[in-house]
Amino acid sequence: MKKILDITFPLSANLTVWPNDPPVRMEAIREAGKGARSTISRLEMGSHSGTHLDAPSHFIEGGGTVDALDLDILIGECLAAEVEADAITAEVIDSLNIPDDVQRVIFKTRNSQRFTETGDFFRDYVGVTTSGARRLLEMGIKLVGTDYLSAAAYSDITQVHCALLDGGVVLLEMLNLKDIRPGRYELVCLPLKLAGADGSPCRAVLIEDAKKG
Amino acid sequence: MKKILDITFPLSANLTVWPNDPPVRMEAIREAGKGARSTISRLEMGSHSGTHLDAPSHFIEGGGTVDALDLDILIGECLAAEVEADAITAEVIDSLNIPDDVQRVIFKTRNSQRFTETGDFFRDYVGVTTSGARRLLEMGIKLVGTDYLSAAAYSDITQVHCALLDGGVVLLEMLNLKDIRPGRYELVCLPLKLAGADGSPCRAVLIEDAKKG
Repeated sequence: MKKILDITFPLSANLTVWPNDPPVRMEAIREAGKGARSTISRLEMGSHSGTHLDAPSHFIEGGGTVDALDLDILIGECLAAEVEADAITAEVIDSLNIPDDVQRVIFKTRNSQRFTETGDFFRDYVGVTTSGARRLLEMGIKLVGTDYLSAAAYSDITQVHCALLDGGVVLLEMLNLKDIRPGRYELVCLPLKLAGADGSPCRAVLIEDAKKG
Repeated sequence: MKKILDITFPLSANLTVWPNDPPVRMEAIREAGKGARSTISRLEMGSHSGTHLDAPSHFIEGGGTVDALDLDILIGECLAAEVEADAITAEVIDSLNIPDDVQRVIFKTRNSQRFTETGDFFRDYVGVTTSGARRLLEMGIKLVGTDYLSAAAYSDITQVHCALLDGGVVLLEMLNLKDIRPGRYELVCLPLKLAGADGSPCRAVLIEDAKKG
């Protein structure tokens, strides 16, 4: 029997976003029972709000857009790995002994305990460093997920995003991993099909007891 | 080997929406290479834009919201059935001989040939009628998908939405089924986790050669 674990943060007006990114807004413009037969809302948000995916064009001029992300990468076997360290460096990744067949990895860090949906943004989150990005590319990893607004450490934002996105790695950010045990799952993360966009909020789930790869 | 078929229409500014619904807008507010290190966009759209899911609260005051839709219904075995008729009535559904074990059904109709992404809205689309809704409930169907902006026929909008949504049936609308052959697939349709919203654009895919149920 499969069990679906939701690893997505709810999108709401108070959700913490990256500094200077647009806030999330939702407003009913017609309401059932209040002069209309149905309720419809206007949605506003940034392309990197909440749990989301980065497209190459987020950091690379003329790079691929979010509607073109490869669905074969967004759905498939995934390893959830726990990191105790302050940064996801090459050395830390090596210490995890990630098996050769792993193509998708999500890192659960202390961000998962520290982040609260409406709290202040903090810079000293645990993220992937330049050496970590290099190691992930060497390993042939196709998707990297983390539990904060950026997969890249704050000090290495541009280098890490450019290296991974240019290397064809999909970045899945702001996962809600607080209740996730390390191990193998089936990952499904689907962005909106936003034509030409640099990223998209997504729904991300882990499926337990899927066939092991 | 699994094959993932995308049945989602791209969201763009010119996409046809339901009359008086908000249009889709995307605007880059920072651009990599133009005074910023990364590109970020502001997104605006209606909660029922493009390929989307309805929550009970779309038609039912105090009904369940889109963030609470059951993921076990949104992921699983699905039948794609072709309908030649002008409406999805009880009689038409009976003629399809849908097996008892089917819980999710998507109807491919002539809407799939007629709809163009930027064309005018038309009222005489093929949709589920009141008798069709009753039959789907009797059959224990949990998810109904169609290939136009509303699963309900235009003449029966309120009755059909209320009957199905109140009966716990998830409505998946505006699917791009032009290239889909009738048959069994694994369906994955994931909405954004919009707190308290009446619906959400979603990404919907069919997976071919998944295990048969």
